[in-house]
Amino acid sequence: MTDQRIRDSFANQGLMTTLGATLSHVAAGEVHISAPLQAATSQQHGAGHAGLTFALADTAAGYAALTLMEAGREVMTVEAKINLMAPAIGEVLIARGKVIRAGRRLTVVQAEVFAIKGDTETCIAILQGTMIPVDPA
Amino acid sequence: MTDQRIRDSFANQGLMTTLGATLSHVAAGEVHISAPLQAATSQQHGAGHAGLTFALADTAAGYAALTLMEAGREVMTVEAKINLMAPAIGEVLIARGKVIRAGRRLTVVQAEVFAIKGDTETCIAILQGTMIPVDPA
Amino acid sequence: MTDQRIRDSFANQGLMTTLGATLSHVAAGEVHISAPLQAATSQQHGAGHAGLTFALADTAAGYAALTLMEAGREVMTVEAKINLMAPAIGEVLIARGKVIRAGRRLTVVQAEVFAIKGDTETCIAILQGTMIPVDPA
Amino acid sequence: MTDQRIRDSFANQGLMTTLGATLSHVAAGEVHISAPLQAATSQQHGAGHAGLTFALADTAAGYAALTLMEAGREVMTVEAKINLMAPAIGEVLIARGKVIRAGRRLTVVQAEVFAIKGDTETCIAILQGTMIPVDPA
Repeated sequence: MTDQRIRDSFANQGLMTTLGATLSHVAAGEVHISAPLQAATSQQHGAGHAGLTFALADTAAGYAALTLMEAGREVMTVEAKINLMAPAIGEVLIARGKVIRAGRRLTVVQAEVFAIKGDTETCIAILQGTMIPVDPA
Repeated sequence: MTDQRIRDSFANQGLMTTLGATLSHVAAGEVHISAPLQAATSQQHGAGHAGLTFALADTAAGYAALTLMEAGREVMTVEAKINLMAPAIGEVLIARGKVIRAGRRLTVVQAEVFAIKGDTETCIAILQGTMIPVDPA
Repeated sequence: MTDQRIRDSFANQGLMTTLGATLSHVAAGEVHISAPLQAATSQQHGAGHAGLTFALADTAAGYAALTLMEAGREVMTVEAKINLMAPAIGEVLIARGKVIRAGRRLTVVQAEVFAIKGDTETCIAILQGTMIPVDPA
Repeated sequence: MTDQRIRDSFANQGLMTTLGATLSHVAAGEVHISAPLQAATSQQHGAGHAGLTFALADTAAGYAALTLMEAGREVMTVEAKINLMAPAIGEVLIARGKVIRAGRRLTVVQAEVFAIKGDTETCIAILQGTMIPVDPA
């Protein structure tokens, strides 16, 4: 799975465009995605919404899984669980997804999400989930 | 907790506005949130993104929890786990959140998310999570 | 999948015997398992251990999934998430597992665990998970 | 929280005795628990039961959380999610629990479980969960 295929797939995700997200790192078994913290993706107190945090973590973890799947496959989330540990406050969120175990039928993944405020990076969430290869539509 | 307080808080969630979401039902221990399935919130194949599904489910479940919390409190997600069972295909998603147990310190919640396509409603995801009351900022 | 096959498989689970568990109900998509609350399965304060609660819930949910799988298949837990809502206090725990969606590749399940004390039944835990068919060894 | 307090609490867990478990490492924010793989804790094919794997992971993670809580507090599991990645085959299971974030109200934890067979150690499960301090009964 080349970087380009991950980048092409990412570019087709309308939600990622809406969230202002960018693919900041793609390597075998590891993908990072960043997005600005802004009013358009906030919860009621102005911090980043849990839905934003989850979307970035899930997408980073899913593409990390895809890097290790056979060429021509696509990836879908079976399930994911996120613990939100601190409010998403700062300028930018970055989600770092990685593969824990790439099995024949399923891939187990984790992601961490960090809020960057000036020079400080705070881990605000961790995700653990399961990805599955699917045939392209 | 009156409906109005849930509605005011919801109106302040930038992400809900961005997703085109509306609060369609508020009762003690149960809240429903709907959003259109559209290109701006899609994944790479045009179905609704898992991040959209999660955002609606988490928000519906969180506000369901808030309906049973003391006046003046706000709610935050401690953690949530979602199983995605079918693609989010159709015109509208509706997330129905409810309280399973409202404890003194924590509230356990569930949500179901349905995709509506014409006259058909398909359950595409279930969420189980934990909410916590917080003091307003 | 006949009742007898579930019962035969259950009888081969050493842990279920060790926990004193019995299969109290088997129907298509739904299985119940009971076990006594006793010192041998307690946590440090004498209530039932979270490991007991999980074991019953996971097993009930897994066999519920197996009732809907093709003959000759076995079942394994992909992942499961449990919320513990109240201490496991009473005479007996009963876990009720059911299938939420039986897919071609994966089955999504839920379980509830109740503590029975005299005439009172308290829901102490809920589980949401994913089961997968496997070929017999 | 001294080692001795963790050890005293562990010794009072009937289930840990029943599973043959031992506390093999206690440090600030990290606890390891081992147990033999034996017929009494097996599933239907002779591998270790998911309930055993969960019990060890949850207990290791819970005690890891307790090492960082105030003296005199006890710990309870709010919720935990486990991904089972490989069968529990070998002589011994070892669960390594650690604290990811010790908050004022809640502690987020992770655990990994390894099956040891001869000289080989295989990661068979990962757990992510939430612990809460409680007052002693």
